[in-house]
Amino acid sequence: MNIETKCVNAIRVLSADAIQKAKSGHPGMPLGAAPTAYELWAHHMNHNPKNPKWANRDRFILSGGHASAMLYSLLHFFGYGLTLDDIKDFRQDGSLTPGHPEYGRTLGVEATTGPLGAGIGMAVGMAIAEAHLAAKFNKPEFPIVDHYTFALCGEGCMMEGISSEALSLAGTFGLGKLIIIYDSNNISIEGSTDITFREDVAARVAAFGFQTLTVEDGNNLDEIGKAIEAAKSDKNRPSFITVKTHIGYGSPKQDSASSHGEPLGEENVIALKKFLGWDNPEETFNIPADVYEHYSKLADNAAQVEADWQKLFDEYAAKFPEAKKLWDEYHAQIDAEKLLSDENFWRVDDKAQATRASSGNIIAYLKDLMPNLIGGSADLGPSNKTVMKDAGDFSKENYAGRNLHFGVREMAMAAVCNGLFLHGGLKPYCATFFVFVDYMKPMMRLASLMKIPMPYIFTHDSIGVGEDGPTHEPIEQLAMLRAQPNLNVFRAADATETAAGWYLALTSTKTPTALILTRQNIPQLKNSSKEALKGGYVISEAAGELQGILIATGSEVSTAIDAQAELAKENIFVRVVSLPCAEIFEQQSDEYKEKILPKKIRARVAIEAAANYGWGSYVGLDGDTVTMSGFGASAPANVLFKKFGFTKENVARVMKSVIEKL
Amino acid sequence: MNIETKCVNAIRVLSADAIQKAKSGHPGMPLGAAPTAYELWAHHMNHNPKNPKWANRDRFILSGGHASAMLYSLLHFFGYGLTLDDIKDFRQDGSLTPGHPEYGRTLGVEATTGPLGAGIGMAVGMAIAEAHLAAKFNKPEFPIVDHYTFALCGEGCMMEGISSEALSLAGTFGLGKLIIIYDSNNISIEGSTDITFREDVAARVAAFGFQTLTVEDGNNLDEIGKAIEAAKSDKNRPSFITVKTHIGYGSPKQDSASSHGEPLGEENVIALKKFLGWDNPEETFNIPADVYEHYSKLADNAAQVEADWQKLFDEYAAKFPEAKKLWDEYHAQIDAEKLLSDENFWRVDDKAQATRASSGNIIAYLKDLMPNLIGGSADLGPSNKTVMKDAGDFSKENYAGRNLHFGVREMAMAAVCNGLFLHGGLKPYCATFFVFVDYMKPMMRLASLMKIPMPYIFTHDSIGVGEDGPTHEPIEQLAMLRAQPNLNVFRAADATETAAGWYLALTSTKTPTALILTRQNIPQLKNSSKEALKGGYVISEAAGELQGILIATGSEVSTAIDAQAELAKENIFVRVVSLPCAEIFEQQSDEYKEKILPKKIRARVAIEAAANYGWGSYVGLDGDTVTMSGFGASAPANVLFKKFGFTKENVARVMKSVIEKL
Repeated sequence: MNIETKCVNAIRVLSADAIQKAKSGHPGMPLGAAPTAYELWAHHMNHNPKNPKWANRDRFILSGGHASAMLYSLLHFFGYGLTLDDIKDFRQDGSLTPGHPEYGRTLGVEATTGPLGAGIGMAVGMAIAEAHLAAKFNKPEFPIVDHYTFALCGEGCMMEGISSEALSLAGTFGLGKLIIIYDSNNISIEGSTDITFREDVAARVAAFGFQTLTVEDGNNLDEIGKAIEAAKSDKNRPSFITVKTHIGYGSPKQDSASSHGEPLGEENVIALKKFLGWDNPEETFNIPADVYEHYSKLADNAAQVEADWQKLFDEYAAKFPEAKKLWDEYHAQIDAEKLLSDENFWRVDDKAQATRASSGNIIAYLKDLMPNLIGGSADLGPSNKTVMKDAGDFSKENYAGRNLHFGVREMAMAAVCNGLFLHGGLKPYCATFFVFVDYMKPMMRLASLMKIPMPYIFTHDSIGVGEDGPTHEPIEQLAMLRAQPNLNVFRAADATETAAGWYLALTSTKTPTALILTRQNIPQLKNSSKEALKGGYVISEAAGELQGILIATGSEVSTAIDAQAELAKENIFVRVVSLPCAEIFEQQSDEYKEKILPKKIRARVAIEAAANYGWGSYVGLDGDTVTMSGFGASAPANVLFKKFGFTKENVARVMKSVIEKL
Repeated sequence: MNIETKCVNAIRVLSADAIQKAKSGHPGMPLGAAPTAYELWAHHMNHNPKNPKWANRDRFILSGGHASAMLYSLLHFFGYGLTLDDIKDFRQDGSLTPGHPEYGRTLGVEATTGPLGAGIGMAVGMAIAEAHLAAKFNKPEFPIVDHYTFALCGEGCMMEGISSEALSLAGTFGLGKLIIIYDSNNISIEGSTDITFREDVAARVAAFGFQTLTVEDGNNLDEIGKAIEAAKSDKNRPSFITVKTHIGYGSPKQDSASSHGEPLGEENVIALKKFLGWDNPEETFNIPADVYEHYSKLADNAAQVEADWQKLFDEYAAKFPEAKKLWDEYHAQIDAEKLLSDENFWRVDDKAQATRASSGNIIAYLKDLMPNLIGGSADLGPSNKTVMKDAGDFSKENYAGRNLHFGVREMAMAAVCNGLFLHGGLKPYCATFFVFVDYMKPMMRLASLMKIPMPYIFTHDSIGVGEDGPTHEPIEQLAMLRAQPNLNVFRAADATETAAGWYLALTSTKTPTALILTRQNIPQLKNSSKEALKGGYVISEAAGELQGILIATGSEVSTAIDAQAELAKENIFVRVVSLPCAEIFEQQSDEYKEKILPKKIRARVAIEAAANYGWGSYVGLDGDTVTMSGFGASAPANVLFKKFGFTKENVARVMKSVIEKL
């Protein structure tokens, strides 16, 4: 057997064995796509298995994350550090080889994938990052940023709407170094894709502005290689290569849906090995030495590419010290201490202002402070106040632009930002109306999973939206985000708290932050302060013996303070706690939390122009809330706040009723 | 001025006046798309303004819901019941003319729109409904179901991924009576669409299998009319008409983004009227009598179409009494009393079973009980257990099939189901893995808003997913859904509770239901019963004086019962409450709720293999939870339940700790 064929089959055999041992997994794609993956990794991708974090490596994203066994096999054979024991531990607790690839767990995994289509969006983000950094840093004869981004996807990825969103954006931006490889086998879980997916996929992608190529025989390494090179050679358009393959290739389950997502069965694994001409087909995890030797040679060759680049980069650094300094700045974390004492960052005007406007002021300041800040909105920049003035628009004609126009494509926006961050070197942000976070949710979840500290900017955060009505008024979105692990949800009560939210977002290293901001003007509060960095604090103390606590966020904090004054007139003394970020508050010491919310004070009322859900943990069984029970209405904002009880009178009334019942 | 031109301009003038009066709204599309809308409603759409609910009317969905002023103008002029005062009340509290069109509020509004792209998905659902009902009911010479579905969308709709998902499905199904009209003006909120949207939209849609047509001059009624007729005449493919228009046509803001989403300004409204040659341009809401007369004539002609159809239908009913009986069955609510006492529906096996399998048994039973049941999964039918055996697959070749193959398109699936329901005559359902509800969220929100009682089937409901790991393990999804207004979230603890969940889903008239079901086998519980219809009930009473309450849902109820037994060994007596549906439980009388969860019992522990968020309202400040704090892990399910503390020992330990602290 030709050694290359043997190396391809080794991926198949190892994948099948790992899945069979785990009694769980997806053999279909590894068996079908192994030649494509092998050819790409062996002969067309610049990567160095000895240094998976090399800045100028080609990126590879397995968008069809269920084919994890194939990716782990590649990482094992190329020497990324996965041992045969790791492979044998496939899908077991604590292993380096979980069911779907997890960024941060396994070296060489560029992104967490599994939810279909997500990898395509993240790949587009990486390609944007490459184009932008190249425009910023490259000098004549010094292409220090110069790499491709590959994504391997299947039918499922292409059915998901995010594929259209992301590829339309990629086509518009003319991302010539983005190459999507489409493993097309015409089978999905419910059977032939004809039952639901008869479209001409390549024609769709061509309409987005892609070069499209086809490999008729997905087992033909030569044909695959030529297509990849043709893709690389078109610098003006991204490329899309359709590779026609057979799901479950070589096994008795070939071309059937049942090979997709369950082990082949021991006998079928043996039959597969026999079909492939594998020695000792009854043995498991039996990989011949010459396979390892061949992969080792490939890895050595690959390592040389980084060495060459490093030489170029060192020369660059010597010749362009300013650029090198900037490069280091781009790749460093922000100086949290410095930002904490940066008066310009914390400066606020003592006037009523929408927190979206406060955020806009901060972005204007950050634009110069953080040259690697890049971002934009899903076609709502002027409303979200997220446009960086004079920072240019990112476009096919200007990759140096820092304002990204994502279009009305919220889901792709979130995925693209994941990719921008994962690439390294950039600090992305993105924005939309808060209610449309619903469209972003699946990709924000990945950010939390991958520990990407994205700042998300969500404006128009409540019934304050007003006349646009229920379709545009977020109600349950705060609860939706607060329930998600590893996400800080920060709803600011004024400009000071908005700065605090931004501070937390920018200095976070592992947790994304959702900044929740108003459309309407709200007052600058007297006692708001950096205490907001603790997530919750007393913003207005009781004027007498403490009888109750009003807990509020965002635009409702000032209402709570007004209600406090109303109650004081009747000698009822309550404290107002501003709780902009419950997640951060919960991380404070027990002493601090007890100080702010003494357990013995049971008369508690939460005020938030959003769903009630979730407030029970703060108001307990004896408290109450002033919150929204329905979807809002279409009317001017001031009418709505009154209609739904967000007035000092009503808040005071509810607090009195709680106190009476105790 | 030609009366037709005048009628077109009347839409423009009335829209601009309404928006100006409200000081809020979106004039851009009404000014640009008025000719298209007029031509369609006046000459190509079968509808009867006097009976907006006529079963065989053509459906019209304004996917770009922000153009609501245009839709309200049409409804006003054609005589759907909106008065000039209603128009003057645009975007005010309680009016019939809210900021975005709301189904159920305004007669003639076929769907709530605003979140872009949604209308396209719903239109596809309506077209599927038409095709299916036609296949089921039409007889030679009796095409009693025979209508078109039109959706009017803009660039924003086409940027959203759901447009690709939905149109790919429509193309695959060859829905010849679906006509999408694309109002293309090359402007979105951030400016020229060139900054983010250079794709060839028509080529994309052609790739989905559509006939594509172009109207070069969006002011030319004749050209528009011809395109619509060409679209109608292709019976084998859906059609997509690009109509090139000018946003904000005729106003000084024409062709600028600023005309999209804010009032033109009083002076610009006057300038618009002058440009259009409108009499007395300084006057507002000034519509000449001949405009009303012309619309009135059009409406009368339209009414005749229904009269003709009714005659045909009466003959049909006489000639095919069985079919007429079936028709009535299709259009009736299910008999809730009968279902409640239907032993076959409630029959369960006394053996461990995954609740997804219990649900599958119910669907098998419902298949014959409810001939209008139609549905499917986003490519996970075999796993979701949602395939109706021998009910046929819906396809271009077989519109009578009742199994829908949505493909890996969760968002479109949810929108399509909204459309299937809105059409009337069918009871749709849909399904996917619970974690992928994230993709469906925006469209499920619309179902709740529109009060569509959809049954959603979500299987693989927790870390019980096992080896597929964190990307596939729902954690925060229960909280996400519970926070959404008007949605019942039902997590069943065994087969009996699964039947109860289905019962509530099928008999609900205004509230969608999410059925949350296990992948793994769970025991059939001794005391589960129809009490589950109350949302929460005592499933295992304390064996001695009540000291605490364990509250659990789904697969964790049996763990709670086991923990109860452990605690009893130490003479600690607790009650176990099964809370499959908190929303329904909260609707019970205060007495009932107090009986189940006496307020004085403060030692409460909630057990649920999902995010902690939201349980505070049941366990209060003194209780605790056994829940998930992170995203889970990849390992066999039994390993994970133990790892994360879902064992009787750990639950008992937590309860003891709560009791000790009181």
